[in-house]
Amino acid sequence: MGESKASELSSLFLQDDLQENSTRLASGHPADIAAALQEIKPAPAWSILKEATRLRQADIFGYLDAGFQLRLAAVIPRADLAAIFVEMDADDRTDLYKHLSDQQREALMPALAHAEREDIRQLAAYEEGTAGAIMTSDYASLSPQLNATQAIEVLRREAPNKETIYRAYVLDTGRQLVGSVRLQDLITAPASVRVADLMERNTHAIRVNDDVEDAARKIARYDVIALPVIDAQERLVGIITHDDALDVMEAEATEDFQRIGTVTNLDSSVATATVPMLYRARIAWLMLLVFGNIFSGAGIAHFEDTIAAHLALMFFLPILIASGGNAGSQSATLMVRALATGDIRISDWGRVLGRELVVAILLGLSMAAAIAVIGVFRGGRDIAIVIALSMIVIVTVGSMIGMLLPFILSRFRMDPATASTPLVTSIADATGVLIYFSIAKALLSLP
Amino acid sequence: MGESKASELSSLFLQDDLQENSTRLASGHPADIAAALQEIKPAPAWSILKEATRLRQADIFGYLDAGFQLRLAAVIPRADLAAIFVEMDADDRTDLYKHLSDQQREALMPALAHAEREDIRQLAAYEEGTAGAIMTSDYASLSPQLNATQAIEVLRREAPNKETIYRAYVLDTGRQLVGSVRLQDLITAPASVRVADLMERNTHAIRVNDDVEDAARKIARYDVIALPVIDAQERLVGIITHDDALDVMEAEATEDFQRIGTVTNLDSSVATATVPMLYRARIAWLMLLVFGNIFSGAGIAHFEDTIAAHLALMFFLPILIASGGNAGSQSATLMVRALATGDIRISDWGRVLGRELVVAILLGLSMAAAIAVIGVFRGGRDIAIVIALSMIVIVTVGSMIGMLLPFILSRFRMDPATASTPLVTSIADATGVLIYFSIAKALLSLP
Repeated sequence: MGESKASELSSLFLQDDLQENSTRLASGHPADIAAALQEIKPAPAWSILKEATRLRQADIFGYLDAGFQLRLAAVIPRADLAAIFVEMDADDRTDLYKHLSDQQREALMPALAHAEREDIRQLAAYEEGTAGAIMTSDYASLSPQLNATQAIEVLRREAPNKETIYRAYVLDTGRQLVGSVRLQDLITAPASVRVADLMERNTHAIRVNDDVEDAARKIARYDVIALPVIDAQERLVGIITHDDALDVMEAEATEDFQRIGTVTNLDSSVATATVPMLYRARIAWLMLLVFGNIFSGAGIAHFEDTIAAHLALMFFLPILIASGGNAGSQSATLMVRALATGDIRISDWGRVLGRELVVAILLGLSMAAAIAVIGVFRGGRDIAIVIALSMIVIVTVGSMIGMLLPFILSRFRMDPATASTPLVTSIADATGVLIYFSIAKALLSLP
Repeated sequence: MGESKASELSSLFLQDDLQENSTRLASGHPADIAAALQEIKPAPAWSILKEATRLRQADIFGYLDAGFQLRLAAVIPRADLAAIFVEMDADDRTDLYKHLSDQQREALMPALAHAEREDIRQLAAYEEGTAGAIMTSDYASLSPQLNATQAIEVLRREAPNKETIYRAYVLDTGRQLVGSVRLQDLITAPASVRVADLMERNTHAIRVNDDVEDAARKIARYDVIALPVIDAQERLVGIITHDDALDVMEAEATEDFQRIGTVTNLDSSVATATVPMLYRARIAWLMLLVFGNIFSGAGIAHFEDTIAAHLALMFFLPILIASGGNAGSQSATLMVRALATGDIRISDWGRVLGRELVVAILLGLSMAAAIAVIGVFRGGRDIAIVIALSMIVIVTVGSMIGMLLPFILSRFRMDPATASTPLVTSIADATGVLIYFSIAKALLSLP
């Protein structure tokens, strides 16, 4: 559903009577209802939402943006909020908990059962960006001694509270993960076969402190519905589901895009970001790059006499320095994405370097040939030689900078995506100015 | 598993005896085994793979890259290949079929049952990029008249051949989609309740000719394991599973990254791409941008007298034109990604334009203030005024170009991601040269 459909639904909500809204609340997908409620102010949104069942309220609440959740939570009576909170999925609930103020937390916690309080405290303790921070404790587990019928019975009882029962995790008495079994296999197996004989032993798992992106990548690689999360003692502590993995991948790709475009910390969606948010996200890099480009300016100033003696050189300056930046930004973008998807690892830099050098020289030669033709017409043979030679060197150096920068940044534990196109361009520009005028000065015997 | 682990496994495969390799083939995850086999040449890879069971061979085959599948298919005896082909998932099989030569297809088809041949022909007929092209026909369907026990019995019988039985689609006698039911709900329901009373009626579906990215976005939005695909008569023709949606999203993000970095048609992974493949993917854009930058050069040449009269202007040229390009590339990247994720739609351009203008002017003012200080020191008050004024105009115009270009490209049915940073930079550069020297000429009364 696009935004216009959300607006449509929200105006229906505001116009119609309770009866019709109740039907709408009960039948629509929670994601659609959440999108519609977000178009309304929190107080009227709550007066609509309160007509739904608790479970439904909790489902819809889980689909709201973090910001709107907080504004809505502020207008919901404490008892209602606690009841919604209890019904929410463990991972959504923990996310909300993390965003609440200390005061709001204290108001909520007494309304919860001891086990739930402990669950929230434990889940909330994991650092952002780790598997622990996005996992849910709503997994189904089985003992290896059960037979297929008993196992199905256990799952049937637990089903309403679990995120997925399609794969159940088999735990020994110490809660250590020994395998996993698919509901599909339990159903098709003879009733008396034991879980231990049905389960897959080599269940892929991830450590609770591992990077959340590694978890998402494993889910993508092995096409699983969920990935179990284990602690240092190999005990099962949670699962990460395929839909959360998809969200992580999406968010990560968006973050990399923004890095590549030198936009920082834009937490909000672009559609709803305010002017101050956009200004803050953009100004730092722009300022930094201004000062980066002073080097190019200083380079030009340094060669002022060379330029004055041969103003025709200026005609080719934009073409030459832009080509270095463009070739570099191609290399950087390829490497940033390959590093992000795990296609290439940091230790591969040597293997990639040789190939990149060959490609860069070939690109430089082709572009030099093209530009030399224009050079002959505009400045004669000598100028043509200078710009052709400069083009080869500039494109090669630019490509090398673009290729290596993401690896160097990774090496110093910075995000490789910081090797944004504008950063690569700035460095390649300054280098290009020096290369061009140095070659010109040497070959044209200029001052 | 990273590449080093794949190489490790592949050398074990090559060293060890048949016995140990059989165990390895039977116990490892097909994705890992496929990665290891790809490190080996097709002939020895087949001599290893042929020790696995047919079903396992088919699973592993499905995880191989398209290129390696073809090379391997060329060395597998026809009868074996046909047997593997029969066991493959419908969607993987169709992908392979599309890549085969006419000769190979003719050799394979007689080995298949009539129903399978028809299935492949139908699936292969859908255009690339549509939901039909990635859907699978291995879905589970139920009649609404069945009760829960009967329904589970049907699913149990069909399970081995279906991609997922966790959600079964409820079809009326005309095969029209009337709802869907979760295995979870069938299991927890009393035995005599009918499917018609258990199913969700508002099942989200997608049309067979709809864009595959829309399908992926729906799966992400509604957190479903699979999305049903219907034809014009609302008949169910296939499903798209969550893992395929994830692959689509990943591939789409990679493609957008490459567009943003002006790399075209790099079908292979960056890790395995050859020098000619990389050269071809990069040269066209680089050449195009060379000629784009001729406009900047021509702009400078046009103002040669102005420059000669005031060479100090050259110092600020790189800073000013780069700032326009950088601000523009920020805007373009934000818009490209927002359009790709569906966060912003094409019709929203007017709504975003006003906000962008305000942000751009604020950014321009801040950067003008910073650069004016340097201007006073390097060139005096008049120069400072010229460059401050130029900065405001250039950053504002650059941002507008960057913001609008993706919308304009979309309007003309081109991929908005073609509004790459280098393209925006080239346009902003040429515009920046004109703005800067025009302002300088006017205010400094230069020739």
